[in-house]
Amino acid sequence: MSVLRDFAEQLGSGRIRVVDLTAPLRDSTPILQLPPPFGNTVPFQLEEISRYDDRGPAWYWNNIHTGEHTGTHLDAPVHWVTGKDGHSVADIPPAELIAPASVLDFAGKAQADPDFLLRVSDVEAWEAEHGTVGGWFLYRTGWDARSGSQDAFLNADENGPHTPGIAADCVAWLLAERTIVGIGVETVGTDAGAAHSSDPPFPCHGALAGSGRYGLTQLQNLAELPPTGAVVIATGLPIVGGSGSPARVLGLVEP
Amino acid sequence: MSVLRDFAEQLGSGRIRVVDLTAPLRDSTPILQLPPPFGNTVPFQLEEISRYDDRGPAWYWNNIHTGEHTGTHLDAPVHWVTGKDGHSVADIPPAELIAPASVLDFAGKAQADPDFLLRVSDVEAWEAEHGTVGGWFLYRTGWDARSGSQDAFLNADENGPHTPGIAADCVAWLLAERTIVGIGVETVGTDAGAAHSSDPPFPCHGALAGSGRYGLTQLQNLAELPPTGAVVIATGLPIVGGSGSPARVLGLVEP
Repeated sequence: MSVLRDFAEQLGSGRIRVVDLTAPLRDSTPILQLPPPFGNTVPFQLEEISRYDDRGPAWYWNNIHTGEHTGTHLDAPVHWVTGKDGHSVADIPPAELIAPASVLDFAGKAQADPDFLLRVSDVEAWEAEHGTVGGWFLYRTGWDARSGSQDAFLNADENGPHTPGIAADCVAWLLAERTIVGIGVETVGTDAGAAHSSDPPFPCHGALAGSGRYGLTQLQNLAELPPTGAVVIATGLPIVGGSGSPARVLGLVEP
Repeated sequence: MSVLRDFAEQLGSGRIRVVDLTAPLRDSTPILQLPPPFGNTVPFQLEEISRYDDRGPAWYWNNIHTGEHTGTHLDAPVHWVTGKDGHSVADIPPAELIAPASVLDFAGKAQADPDFLLRVSDVEAWEAEHGTVGGWFLYRTGWDARSGSQDAFLNADENGPHTPGIAADCVAWLLAERTIVGIGVETVGTDAGAAHSSDPPFPCHGALAGSGRYGLTQLQNLAELPPTGAVVIATGLPIVGGSGSPARVLGLVEP
């Protein structure tokens, strides 16, 4: 029996469908905005090298100026100080980045309260219906609908950004009590917008990196995945020493 | 029957093995060098934003300056004037980028003659043993062994670069007579080093783009794939209007 042959045949026939979970990369792709004195990433930019012209008569190509954490991207453990001795993005075994996904849809809660934090009880309620979470833990909040606008996506006021996240004790519980590859979200980062003021600050970043697990952000189209049964491919670029990478993230779904 | 569940289980158990076909990205990653007056791509560079310091006490991250066609990368049809009305890299249906691979090993010929060009008769001889080529057409030349050195990789003398490729009539035959997703090579581009002087110039770029097919370059570790039976995932970033993208390319192999 060849599982790979069956897999390739069903992809080829369209029985296995590929859902693109990746945000398009352009200069308007939303980026994180940290307050001074912190450094910020550049927006995504193309720099034209030639376009069927004197600089290259038969060819068109560009340079790219962007950030490791721009658009849909993968956070490696070294991104956070809790994982500073852990894997850079080039060290992550690529087989780990292809895994089944648990897709938890809390878009209704996040629409009602942009500061909504997922709790252990929410995950337990989901598990009562769908079984134990595992693989890629993908947290849908409907935030991808805002990704066309930097302002709507960051949703900041004078107190800072308001975007949904996961409560600190829920992240700790997920990492201690469940076997997950990492956490994927639709927002600009894995933590809630107000996580700078939580205790500890940025609990999702700190706990994921400290556990050698991965973050996946700015996902789109999670609504097209079933709660269980999809397989997600989330490959970044093998940037030597890199803290993360823009990633192409695909969901494989069968009927 | 769930093919996806079997696929995920066998990946998880290691029975399906993942071979990384991607070159690590660092400032020494070889890049194409065109003569004046043509434009050239920048080398891959990281620009540090913060590293657990005043610019970001708990986090480390970088900006990236690179090219669409740097390191292991995907050529979209718009990269070449023959495909200028075709798909940009963001338009390529991602399902097309996951396909079975035919891996043709001509490393011995390329070692004996760095200007070696693959001919139709070479492909026919391979097919007599392994069956009709299809999916990703991956052409191994052993050139990945040179990827640690820009000079050895480009292998240029006063007459220009000397690296192996595919004869113009062979590319035309492959596109007309076989069903392939695209052509993958280990060299800096899909064409031979001396293809600037062939008739037509750059036949592989021109024919692939003109046929709406894809190029895949600077692959590594093709020696770890069987001639047939592997499935290759070759996803670039969805750069809107982009002519190509750095790509993470993985080969899936079962015993």
